[in-house]
Amino acid sequence: MVFVLYGNIMATHTRLVYICAQEMGLVGTPAFELRNVDWSEILYPKDGFDYDKSPFKRIPWFEDTENGVRLFESRAIVKYMAMKINSPPIPRYDDPVDVANFEVACSLELGDFTTYTKMLLYELVHGSMAHQKPTDEHLAKSYRETLTRNFEGYERILSKQRYLAGDKLSVVDLFHIPSALWLAMVGGIPALGEGTLPFTKSDGSDGTLPIPKSADRTWPLPQTADGTLPFPHLREWWNSLMELESVRKVNGQFIEIMQNMRGPHRAEGHGEEEAK
Amino acid sequence: MVFVLYGNIMATHTRLVYICAQEMGLVGTPAFELRNVDWSEILYPKDGFDYDKSPFKRIPWFEDTENGVRLFESRAIVKYMAMKINSPPIPRYDDPVDVANFEVACSLELGDFTTYTKMLLYELVHGSMAHQKPTDEHLAKSYRETLTRNFEGYERILSKQRYLAGDKLSVVDLFHIPSALWLAMVGGIPALGEGTLPFTKSDGSDGTLPIPKSADRTWPLPQTADGTLPFPHLREWWNSLMELESVRKVNGQFIEIMQNMRGPHRAEGHGEEEAK
Repeated sequence: MVFVLYGNIMATHTRLVYICAQEMGLVGTPAFELRNVDWSEILYPKDGFDYDKSPFKRIPWFEDTENGVRLFESRAIVKYMAMKINSPPIPRYDDPVDVANFEVACSLELGDFTTYTKMLLYELVHGSMAHQKPTDEHLAKSYRETLTRNFEGYERILSKQRYLAGDKLSVVDLFHIPSALWLAMVGGIPALGEGTLPFTKSDGSDGTLPIPKSADRTWPLPQTADGTLPFPHLREWWNSLMELESVRKVNGQFIEIMQNMRGPHRAEGHGEEEAK
Repeated sequence: MVFVLYGNIMATHTRLVYICAQEMGLVGTPAFELRNVDWSEILYPKDGFDYDKSPFKRIPWFEDTENGVRLFESRAIVKYMAMKINSPPIPRYDDPVDVANFEVACSLELGDFTTYTKMLLYELVHGSMAHQKPTDEHLAKSYRETLTRNFEGYERILSKQRYLAGDKLSVVDLFHIPSALWLAMVGGIPALGEGTLPFTKSDGSDGTLPIPKSADRTWPLPQTADGTLPFPHLREWWNSLMELESVRKVNGQFIEIMQNMRGPHRAEGHGEEEAK
């Protein structure tokens, strides 16, 4: 055993690492293990929470058992694993230009995309489902407006190159998926999806995820006048990510767990406790 | 000439790069030039804006004239310059552990700190001063609560190590400064400053920046019951950054320009146009 990820596949940022680990070929090998952290360990720790594991009390956290290195912050964990196994979807760290283009994309992903998909997701789904806090429409409106503005920048970039850091897939593309997939499923980002996500169950039958009631009235991002969806290149990029085998596998697992839960959103969405 | 930074020292993220360039010893050498971009070029471009320079229409953008590399996103520009001149305040890119600790800090800075200082700054200062938009108290409250929560994580980390990525100063510490300094000056973050910033003018006399009226009523983050300021380690870290010669120089320049302007906030704060 080398890499141990402590988290919960229902949590957005555990999934962020897990998707990347899957894409890097680590999942299913002895070099990687996902060790489940129960929500109660985070929310109601019996003996107090050990902040040495995660100073922000968030999952996932991580240990490399080979050298005892401990990390928190999902994106840093991914970059560490990728550097250590010399995996392709990170930049060549001996090339400042390659690193810089990757870093541009990393800034956009965290600062202009996921920050807002996460906050919007909290308002549309997690807050109401997990904490009985009604959607704050004022905040949701603000996040949605910012996202729409930022999608314009994404569209400009993705109309010229296939992926966000250039013409090659990198982990930064995958970083966008977990929170945005959730949002797309509930109809929070029409540019990325129509609001129900079809998926294949492990028994081979078709499944779809219904739209939670709370999201119904918070649906639309602007559409073009003729009803077509805006941001065609962003959409094409998104669809290409959704078709990756690694992404299909992890998303399928996640959706299936959710479909099988009594209240579909109870375990996800402990707000600030399960973050980056 | 090698590195050309296109921006405006009044803009938060131009200053982010400029402070780092100063710390790396680049400012004042032939290897670095700050070329001023007038706000009108961004806001009212006569022949339309050239999005190839900056797909999000933000300053700064950047060119390395030696090899023609063009970049946008301030943090990526800093990392590129530092890698190319092999400057100390970045990690050793051949060491996954050093990179990982740095990346943890980078995620915190962008995702948990500057995102919120910037949005709060916009509500308290830039929106009202530059766009005649009154402070949205609802948004400001939400950002302030998140910042306070995140400062708790910072405090835990900085009680164990001197800087955010370890015991050595790195550029990620400097990334925190521009938006937080502004906020501290207007009293938006009592944990980091009391609301007026004393500084030394270039003629050697003392100066202070007054608190803009619009910020008066949006002052407090929580204080402890005895009136002392919370987050002692965060505060110590912040003060140590403020004492760096590079930071004093750039901040002094910035404050002096502001003091000499008729309306002290007119040129800063074109909201989304001058961002990361």
